[in-house]
Amino acid sequence: MDHAAVRRFFLGLQDRIVERLAAIDGTPFRRDAWERPEGGGGTACLIEEGGVFERAGVNFSHVHGAQLPPSASAQRPELAGRSFRAMGVSAVLHPRNPYVPTVHLNVRWLAAERPGAPPVWWFGGGMDLTPYYPFTEDAVHFHRTCRDALALFGTDTHRRYKTWCDDYFYLRHRREPRGIGGIFFDDLSEPGFDSCFELTRSVGEHFLPAYVPLLERRKDLPYGERERAFQAYRRGRYVEFNLIYDRGTLFGLQSGGRTEAILMSLPPRVAWRYDWQPEPGSAEARLYTEFLVARDWAGG
Amino acid sequence: MDHAAVRRFFLGLQDRIVERLAAIDGTPFRRDAWERPEGGGGTACLIEEGGVFERAGVNFSHVHGAQLPPSASAQRPELAGRSFRAMGVSAVLHPRNPYVPTVHLNVRWLAAERPGAPPVWWFGGGMDLTPYYPFTEDAVHFHRTCRDALALFGTDTHRRYKTWCDDYFYLRHRREPRGIGGIFFDDLSEPGFDSCFELTRSVGEHFLPAYVPLLERRKDLPYGERERAFQAYRRGRYVEFNLIYDRGTLFGLQSGGRTEAILMSLPPRVAWRYDWQPEPGSAEARLYTEFLVARDWAGG
Repeated sequence: MDHAAVRRFFLGLQDRIVERLAAIDGTPFRRDAWERPEGGGGTACLIEEGGVFERAGVNFSHVHGAQLPPSASAQRPELAGRSFRAMGVSAVLHPRNPYVPTVHLNVRWLAAERPGAPPVWWFGGGMDLTPYYPFTEDAVHFHRTCRDALALFGTDTHRRYKTWCDDYFYLRHRREPRGIGGIFFDDLSEPGFDSCFELTRSVGEHFLPAYVPLLERRKDLPYGERERAFQAYRRGRYVEFNLIYDRGTLFGLQSGGRTEAILMSLPPRVAWRYDWQPEPGSAEARLYTEFLVARDWAGG
Repeated sequence: MDHAAVRRFFLGLQDRIVERLAAIDGTPFRRDAWERPEGGGGTACLIEEGGVFERAGVNFSHVHGAQLPPSASAQRPELAGRSFRAMGVSAVLHPRNPYVPTVHLNVRWLAAERPGAPPVWWFGGGMDLTPYYPFTEDAVHFHRTCRDALALFGTDTHRRYKTWCDDYFYLRHRREPRGIGGIFFDDLSEPGFDSCFELTRSVGEHFLPAYVPLLERRKDLPYGERERAFQAYRRGRYVEFNLIYDRGTLFGLQSGGRTEAILMSLPPRVAWRYDWQPEPGSAEARLYTEFLVARDWAGG
């Protein structure tokens, strides 16, 4: 188990994502290093009101503390009370153009320790796509790239991590998925450190290939007020998910992370409208009927 | 204990609030009756894009179920597993003019029952104010009316319920109060049903007198893009509070209430900006330095 190698990978991945996105946006990222009084810190990189991104956050954090927060030990009560180390990279991109989906990446490593007991560690992560006005070929490309990321790690792994993603990014109070999914995994410590690290690296390295092609294809499509209004409305669901359900957000807020860095995932402009329903047959209705449904996007 | 009288009071209060606000806004409320498959239902009344209110929701609900939701029994574990009845009125008003504060009222009655055990019941409620560009005389008027509402119910009651409100409407992750507070109470069952019901009625009946004068004084003040932008930014805090902390919101979502009615409390247009700070000495800074601080607004 080599923490330092994981840290180097995460920092390098953040740099590569930031560099590529800055080139596409035409705006440099603002870099904000922060320290946490209880231990650790991070670097938040962001664009606001950029050429392409209305808000883009690519964060690295590495925190440790005396007590694993409840959001991390809820699923593993045997770890409650242990000290912890956690590091990871999180990216959430909110493009201005409603034809470009919002995308989320997370790769993380956690360890829970207690004097006299062997340390418990695990990797987690994934990426998922939240379109407003979707294109089938974009959905297929994203999911196929997710499948490619996991191709070397077992025949069933992509299917399991796709299902996990669909289950995780689900708004129970709306009976609605957050978007069209992708892959999600957690508690990964088998068959061993090297293999788990390799899988996590592969997920991280497939993020730009999964997203950049559809960003470049759609970022200059013309749109108007109607598309922006629908985007703002749908972004409300993103806020609801992140504040009500997302374990990463809750872990960050509970572990004394930096609030402004954690909440960089929230969209810049959002609207709520009472009981709004898309007109049947409209482009907006298509999102619900053709995309926010369980589908095998990657195909056979 | 007379459920029917409580229900009559709640329904009448909803009608009186709706009638008065509709007259001020110049727009009739939309009325949406809904039923809950597991039992009960409610009536949502709302204005969207009105003359004065960008969004105003005044809801009545009366629900029952086989199992008290965790958000209600967290503080009272001895009640877990009991069946429950809950009814109440909730109002959240989001005026368009940034010089008029957002306001929230809730009055509620709950009962938890188990065969063979005496029923446990309690009242709860309160009201609180969330200004953007505040006026001292408005804050004083609101808090004095809250004090008046409780004047007949014990010398210490207003002080205790004001403190409870300050403690409850607090965003721990921001180390910031949601607004300037008001009054909040819960688990009220002493000294007896009649007296608790009377206190709850008094809180409900003082809502319009607490809010309408400042609504009428400020609703026609001129404002511009700067004030709207700050209002949208501050409304983000309202969303964060309601989705992360608010027990009423969580109770509603967990008890199978109607999502659209529960989330009517969310503001219509919201913005998040990274690490935004008001300019020292500005009107926006005054909100933080003079109003979002613990103060005895009602005075001696």
